[in-house]
Amino acid sequence: MKSQAFFGSPDDCARAFYDAFAQADLEALMSVWADDEDICCAHPAAAPLYGYAAVRSGWEAILRGSAKMRIEMREESWHRTIGMVTLHAIQWIYVGDEPQPRGPVFVTNVFQREPQGWRLVVHHASPLQTGLQTGPGQVVLH
Amino acid sequence: MKSQAFFGSPDDCARAFYDAFAQADLEALMSVWADDEDICCAHPAAAPLYGYAAVRSGWEAILRGSAKMRIEMREESWHRTIGMVTLHAIQWIYVGDEPQPRGPVFVTNVFQREPQGWRLVVHHASPLQTGLQTGPGQVVLH
Repeated sequence: MKSQAFFGSPDDCARAFYDAFAQADLEALMSVWADDEDICCAHPAAAPLYGYAAVRSGWEAILRGSAKMRIEMREESWHRTIGMVTLHAIQWIYVGDEPQPRGPVFVTNVFQREPQGWRLVVHHASPLQTGLQTGPGQVVLH
Repeated sequence: MKSQAFFGSPDDCARAFYDAFAQADLEALMSVWADDEDICCAHPAAAPLYGYAAVRSGWEAILRGSAKMRIEMREESWHRTIGMVTLHAIQWIYVGDEPQPRGPVFVTNVFQREPQGWRLVVHHASPLQTGLQTGPGQVVLH
């Protein structure tokens, strides 16, 4: 059964998303997403997943790992308009007892206002090479 | 001087964007973007660029290369709501006379309806490893 969670703002929605990830709580994490066949979730370098069921399966596979994970958000950038908000950030991921975080990962989250409150519709995370400059040689890296 | 181009639909906006890229026409390419300090453009694995001036500089550096480039879009997925449209796709990039395209790259484009028509507000492109499955070991790849 899908969640009846209500998020009054995209900020609440984002907080619930990252808290659920840190708690490895699949139900809470999925309650943040819009119940829509068009939602899109792309994990770093992995094929994009579309629709509620596929997105859920993807997170289930990630959260199934025994080590707890926590995401640290840096350089958050919010873009707010009526009915839609975008959050970009650099993410570092702490896994279990590992002393150093993994990353960085660049993420685009898109939230949308629906009759049942704000929901996540896009989570696009991708590996980031720090210090890389944009230029003709770096259009595609491999 | 910034363009006064008008795009009546996100589809027109997307077409103009990729046509301008193929033509290496910086002015046409930038006419597609919202004139906003919050726009975000992330080239594959590179640090994200925010705001019209930085986004323009990034594209200028890419288009400065002598070889013409062309993007082939595959597996397009459009998500349409009032005032906002998201286009996800797999991109393959043909560079000059190279027989094989570079890529694949996964892209999230977000278009927004403004008083002056539809404009691009987010272009997030990231390297994609084909065939990679989502799982605990692939949360972060490096």
